[in-house]
Amino acid sequence: MASGDILICGLGLMGGSLAAALTRAGRSVLLWHRRPEVAQEAERRGFGKMIATLSEARTAESAVVCTPVSTIPSLVRDIAAVTRAVITDVGSTKCGLLSELHDLDAAGRFIGSHPMCGSHATGLDHADADLYRGRVVITTPTENTDRKALDQIEDMWRVVGARLVRLDPAVHDRAVAVASHLPHLLSSAAAAGLSDAAAPLAAGGFRDTTRVAAGDPALWADILLANRGEVVPELARTLARLEALRDALADADRAAVQRWLEAGQAGRRRFEAAQHR
Amino acid sequence: MASGDILICGLGLMGGSLAAALTRAGRSVLLWHRRPEVAQEAERRGFGKMIATLSEARTAESAVVCTPVSTIPSLVRDIAAVTRAVITDVGSTKCGLLSELHDLDAAGRFIGSHPMCGSHATGLDHADADLYRGRVVITTPTENTDRKALDQIEDMWRVVGARLVRLDPAVHDRAVAVASHLPHLLSSAAAAGLSDAAAPLAAGGFRDTTRVAAGDPALWADILLANRGEVVPELARTLARLEALRDALADADRAAVQRWLEAGQAGRRRFEAAQHR
Repeated sequence: MASGDILICGLGLMGGSLAAALTRAGRSVLLWHRRPEVAQEAERRGFGKMIATLSEARTAESAVVCTPVSTIPSLVRDIAAVTRAVITDVGSTKCGLLSELHDLDAAGRFIGSHPMCGSHATGLDHADADLYRGRVVITTPTENTDRKALDQIEDMWRVVGARLVRLDPAVHDRAVAVASHLPHLLSSAAAAGLSDAAAPLAAGGFRDTTRVAAGDPALWADILLANRGEVVPELARTLARLEALRDALADADRAAVQRWLEAGQAGRRRFEAAQHR
Repeated sequence: MASGDILICGLGLMGGSLAAALTRAGRSVLLWHRRPEVAQEAERRGFGKMIATLSEARTAESAVVCTPVSTIPSLVRDIAAVTRAVITDVGSTKCGLLSELHDLDAAGRFIGSHPMCGSHATGLDHADADLYRGRVVITTPTENTDRKALDQIEDMWRVVGARLVRLDPAVHDRAVAVASHLPHLLSSAAAAGLSDAAAPLAAGGFRDTTRVAAGDPALWADILLANRGEVVPELARTLARLEALRDALADADRAAVQRWLEAGQAGRRRFEAAQHR
């Protein structure tokens, strides 16, 4: 491929930013959105060339579906029907998708992608051509995945500055449960506890710990439910750990409380070490 | 008082910063530390005048004990014995302290203070004359507290730029449990879950949610244990909420999951509203 058309479907923060970055890098980008006025606005901003119907994308060599998780499979099939493009997505869970699209995976037509970035700001208005620069994008090949198709999609992500990580879809879904979904719900639990009386006392620790709890509850309900096969057991493990802490505190078992906190510090260090790699 | 000597006992981050700020504001500061070489270093930095023994502080009109919680009561009594100063502290829990020092509270010699600031950086090397600027300092008067002594201590905090909040000691301890101690332990629980496989996937949400989990486990074990009367019931309430979420996820009850996340978003908004007051 290298210089063929790239179709971006869904022009919110993720799709809009990708279109902006690819266009800036000199690629030819086709813009499609369910509501054509959004594609029109993206074209006005110089993010590519709008198309009104997917059939106009027949020349596309790659396609990226940047819509909510529940709409991805049918849109991937629509694109596969009218183009010869290798198609990818930006959804945050992968096992369900790969199982629904296993035929297109085996045919070298679908690759699962998950960029580890985003923002509380959503929509085309916040599109940023630098959104993917230096960020991790995970691809989730299976044993059936066509290697040429995988290379093509990974090359596209490299164009916008992403760092590629390959993971088995099941390993991916388990890893994002602990790297993202569990932290989000614990942040939310910490925020929910804040009473009006306590609010004036909350300082920097509260501010950072609960930042992501400000996120859209509808969007996050979808994410937690899409990955509940991994989130529920992780949450159960965390509940058991928190019960152990409650018991250690109730018993004034200082050594146990300190060991418990040391396990958290060790996890934070695993994160910091990974950042510097 | 207004212009009398102020004794600072314990010259770590909190005490060193307070000494620096008061000296900069033109106050006369006496510096004492268990290890005299630390007081000497503070004097070298221009934070005040070192004294080798507390008896040299006889002229002090105010005193601030900035040592670990467990050492505060005996140091307060030592200072009360050799000076006429009104004494305060910077400990993060207050009920135990006020009950241990109730006679000095009633005599107008002790006021409980808790500055809502700090850092992972500890020690005199990180002292910062701006540490208290714009930060909340809570005072915890009881029904026996002498109002003139309270005014004197609050005036001192105002000199270094703090915003004063008065709270009953029990209300304070409950509030810091939800504003600080519970968020800390949930941050720690989120960090502990991160496996080596998941570490490269952790991004901005994980970074912020788990920042405080990097803190000193020994220091935080002391804080959680000192306030376990409030932390244990708050933790129990949070466990019940997390169990409800686990059940809602297991049942794929989308409405319940979204309501749960909305409660977190509402808590975050209470925090943001309080910040703008």
